[in-house]
Amino acid sequence: MQRYQPVPMPSTLAGRNSAEEKVLTIDTINPKVKNVQYAVRGELAIKAEELKAKLTQGAKDLPFSTIVNCNIGNPQQLKQPPITFFRQVAALTEYPELLKPEHEALVSQLFPDDAVRRARELLASAGNAIGAYSHSQGIQTIREHVAEFIEARDGFPANPNDIYLTAGASTGVQQILQLLISSDHVGVMIPIPQYPLYTASLALFDAHPVPYYLDESKEWSMDLPGLERSLRRARSNGIDVRALVIINPGNPTGQCLIEENMREVIEFCYSNKLVLLADEVYQTNVYYPEQRPFHSFKKMVRSARPEIRDNLELISFHSISKGVVGECGRRGGYFECVNLDDAVMGQVYKMASVNLCPNVQGQLLVDLMVRPPVQGDASYPLYRQETQGIYDSLKRRSQKLSKAFNEMEGITCNSAEGAMYVFPQIQLPAKAVKAAEQVGKKPDDFYCLRMLDATGVCVIPGSGFGQKDGTYHFRSTFLPPENLFDTFIANLKTFHHQFMQEYS
Amino acid sequence: MQRYQPVPMPSTLAGRNSAEEKVLTIDTINPKVKNVQYAVRGELAIKAEELKAKLTQGAKDLPFSTIVNCNIGNPQQLKQPPITFFRQVAALTEYPELLKPEHEALVSQLFPDDAVRRARELLASAGNAIGAYSHSQGIQTIREHVAEFIEARDGFPANPNDIYLTAGASTGVQQILQLLISSDHVGVMIPIPQYPLYTASLALFDAHPVPYYLDESKEWSMDLPGLERSLRRARSNGIDVRALVIINPGNPTGQCLIEENMREVIEFCYSNKLVLLADEVYQTNVYYPEQRPFHSFKKMVRSARPEIRDNLELISFHSISKGVVGECGRRGGYFECVNLDDAVMGQVYKMASVNLCPNVQGQLLVDLMVRPPVQGDASYPLYRQETQGIYDSLKRRSQKLSKAFNEMEGITCNSAEGAMYVFPQIQLPAKAVKAAEQVGKKPDDFYCLRMLDATGVCVIPGSGFGQKDGTYHFRSTFLPPENLFDTFIANLKTFHHQFMQEYS
Repeated sequence: MQRYQPVPMPSTLAGRNSAEEKVLTIDTINPKVKNVQYAVRGELAIKAEELKAKLTQGAKDLPFSTIVNCNIGNPQQLKQPPITFFRQVAALTEYPELLKPEHEALVSQLFPDDAVRRARELLASAGNAIGAYSHSQGIQTIREHVAEFIEARDGFPANPNDIYLTAGASTGVQQILQLLISSDHVGVMIPIPQYPLYTASLALFDAHPVPYYLDESKEWSMDLPGLERSLRRARSNGIDVRALVIINPGNPTGQCLIEENMREVIEFCYSNKLVLLADEVYQTNVYYPEQRPFHSFKKMVRSARPEIRDNLELISFHSISKGVVGECGRRGGYFECVNLDDAVMGQVYKMASVNLCPNVQGQLLVDLMVRPPVQGDASYPLYRQETQGIYDSLKRRSQKLSKAFNEMEGITCNSAEGAMYVFPQIQLPAKAVKAAEQVGKKPDDFYCLRMLDATGVCVIPGSGFGQKDGTYHFRSTFLPPENLFDTFIANLKTFHHQFMQEYS
Repeated sequence: MQRYQPVPMPSTLAGRNSAEEKVLTIDTINPKVKNVQYAVRGELAIKAEELKAKLTQGAKDLPFSTIVNCNIGNPQQLKQPPITFFRQVAALTEYPELLKPEHEALVSQLFPDDAVRRARELLASAGNAIGAYSHSQGIQTIREHVAEFIEARDGFPANPNDIYLTAGASTGVQQILQLLISSDHVGVMIPIPQYPLYTASLALFDAHPVPYYLDESKEWSMDLPGLERSLRRARSNGIDVRALVIINPGNPTGQCLIEENMREVIEFCYSNKLVLLADEVYQTNVYYPEQRPFHSFKKMVRSARPEIRDNLELISFHSISKGVVGECGRRGGYFECVNLDDAVMGQVYKMASVNLCPNVQGQLLVDLMVRPPVQGDASYPLYRQETQGIYDSLKRRSQKLSKAFNEMEGITCNSAEGAMYVFPQIQLPAKAVKAAEQVGKKPDDFYCLRMLDATGVCVIPGSGFGQKDGTYHFRSTFLPPENLFDTFIANLKTFHHQFMQEYS
C-alpha cells in the first residue's frame, strides 16, 4: 500500500512543527494572547487557592486558619447576601408553573405579591420564553426600563435603542474596544493605576495603551496637564489615539471624581477628538454622597455646551455585579452609546447578533436593579433594610480598613470615597526591595506574598494595576465579612510590624 | 482668554476627521468588524421582525396572519417547553430560602424531592453562592460531571481539567479561534455550507477561511479528495492552515457522519497537522439512531491508532441550547480539549480568567443536561415523557418538512438525519434568476424574500451559509409548533407553485 503523502506546509513554515510537535505550542499560538496579563487572577490568587485547599484538607502547619480573600470584587463569595426580592422574582421566572392559579394558595405563602407581579411582567417582556434567545441587543422592555433609570438619575432622556444589554460590563468593554481598534497604530488612554481588563484587552486587540497617571496627592483625581502630556507624546509618536477610559468611582483607587474635574475631562476629549469610555460600574458604591456624589458622564455631556452635548462620543458601562446587588455570577450589565454615528451603531448591532444574545437571566436582573421595589410595595421594607444594611456595612468596613492601613508604619491610604477597594501606598525599606530582587520578585509582589504566607490575607500587588515607578501599592477589597475584620486587621498589623523590623 | 490648542493628530492622520466628523465612522472603525457577515440575523430576519410588528399593530393588508420563524434554531421561542425538572432545580437554586426546613411542608407540595436534593447539591458545588464569580474554568464539580458524561457516552475517560464551561458553544469557538489565529496568514478549513459563526469569527480575527465542500450527492458527507485539494491549494498559496472545523450533526445540512468517514477525517488531520474543531452541539438531535448514530470525534480519536490517539489535537464543543434541552437564552455549554500542550492550556485558562467566569445559571444547566433524572428518581417519568415527546415531534416535523419540499417542483431535499434543519436545493428558473438580478438581489435571497412576503414563512437563503456556485438552497428549521405545519406547508406549496409559474 502506498504511504499517504501529507500536503506540504508553505515553504515559509517548513520545519516549524517537527513531526512530534503539536500544532499549537506556546510559540505558535496567537502572540497577542500570550501578551495578555491579568493580575487579579494571577500568582497571588493561585497561591491563595492552593493554601485554601490545604486548609480544607486539614493542614495544621499554617500560621492562620482561614484565607481572607481581599483580592477580588466578588461580594457574594464573601457572604454578602443576595437581595431577597431579586431572587424571588428570578425563581418565579425560572419555573412559571408557580404562577398558575392552582398554586396561588401555596405560592402566596412563600412569595410576596409584588414578586409574583414582577415575575409575570418580566415573563411577558421575554415573550414568555426566558429559555429562548432574546433580541440580540437585549429585551426591548428591559432596555426601556434602563432608559427610564438613566433619565431619573441624570435628568436627561435616554433612548432604549442606544442601550445594549451585555453579559457583564467586561463583555461590553471588549465589544467596544474591538470596534474602535482599527489597526495596531490605534491607542487608547487608560488610567494608571487601572483595572487590568483594559491592558489585557488592548494587548489582545493589539492596540497601544496610552497611560495617564491619576493624581494620588489629590485623591486620585484626573490631572489635566498630565493627560495633555500623555496624549501629546503618543500622537507625536504617530499613535492614532482615539479614546480615553475613565473608571469612576475608581478601581483600584476608590475615588469619586468631582464635577469640575469631569467637565475639564470632557472638554479635553471633545477638543482632542477622543471617544470617552466611562466605566461606571461602581456608581452606587459611593460612601460620602454629600461631599462626593456620583455624577455620570452622560449627565456631564448632556449639560455641557451644545457642541459637546451633541457631538462628544461617549459609551458608559454599568453592571449588576457591583453596588449592593453584587450578582457577579449572573453576568449582567449594559452600555449606553451617546452621540454615536448611526452606521457605527449598525455595526455594534451586527456584532451583538453574532454573539446571539446576552444571557436572559442576567438581563432580568438588570431590570430588577434599575426598577427595585418602591415605597408601598410589599417587598419595599425588606429591600430597604437589606440594601441599607449592605451599604452601611461596606462603608464601615472601608473606613476601618483605610484607618488600619494609615496606622501602619510607612503606609498611607486614601479613604475610599467609592467602589470596593483601597489602594494604599507602602514605603518599602531598601533592604526589602533588595531581598525581593534576590528572589526575582517585584518588591510589591514580594510584600504581598509574604503577607499571604503570614496571615492568609490575599491582596493584589500594585504592579498588577500600574503605579508610578519607584512607588509600591497593593489593592485590597473591603468585602470580607465584617466579623472577620478585627482579627485579620490585627494579623496584618503584626505581620507588617515584623516585616518592617526584619528589613529595617 | 487664550483659546485651547488641541493636541495635533499624527501627521499620517492629518485631515482624517474633519472637525464636524465623529471619531468613529464607518470608515474609521475596525475594518475586520465591518467585514463580518451574519446572515442568520440578516435581511430576512429583520424583515420578518418588521412584518411581525405590523401584525401586532393589527395590519390587515398582509396575505398571512402570523410569521413562521424557520430562520433560527431557537426552540423555546417557538413554544418548545423547557424540561420541568431543570427549571424546578433552577428556581430552587435562585431562592435557597425555599430549602429551609420551615418551608418544607409547602415546598414539598410544589417541587419533587429529587429537585430539592439536586438544588442542594448544586448550591454546595457553587460554595452556596451562585451570585459569586465561579472558578474561571467553571465549577469544579460540574466539570467532573461533564467528564463522567463524556466517559459514559464514549467509553473513554475524560479529565475535568480539560473541560471549560462556556457561555454557549459560540463563545467557546471564538475563544479557541482567537487562540490559534496567530497572524493573517493563518487559515482554518470550514465546511461549505457552514454555520456563519465561523466565517464571521474568521473575518473578525483576520484569518483565511479555507472552504471545503460537503458532498450533497452523498448526504452532505465529508469528501476526502475535496479536503485534500482545498488544503493543497491553500498551503501552496502560503496559507498557514492550522485547523479543520466540522459540524456534526450538520448545520445547516442536518447530516450525521458515519464512522468510516470520520476515521478518514482524523487520519487526514493527523497527517496534515491540523487541529480538529468539532462542533457537536446537535449530538442528541439524531433521528435515525440505528442507521446513523452520533459518534463523537473524541471517541474516534481515542480509539484510533496510538499516534493519533495520543497526539491529534481536538477541541469538541457542546451546548445546552440544542438537543431536547433548548435552553438558548441561558447561554451555557462546554468544550473539551484533547491532546493539547500544557503551556497552551495555561493560555486557555488565562483568557478564561480575563472573562471572569461563564454565567453560573448556564453552568448549572450544563450539570442538569449531563446528569438528568434516572430511573427510580421521582422526576424520571415526567422527564422521560417530556424529552421523548419533544424528540418524537422533532422527528415527525423533520420528515414532514423534507417530504413537503421534495414534492415541490424543482426542489430536492435530503432527509434530516440530525440537527434542526433541512437545506433543500432549488432549481430556480432562468427568468427568476434574471428577475433577481434586475432588483439587485442574489437569486436565493430573491426567492426567500418572496416566500416571506407571500406566506410569512422566514427561512435563510443558502448564500448566507455558502453553496456551490450556480446552486441555490435555503435553510429551514423544523421548529415551529407541530399544529402549524399543515397550514404553513400548504401555504409554501401554493407560493412555490405560483412562483415557478410566474418565472417559467
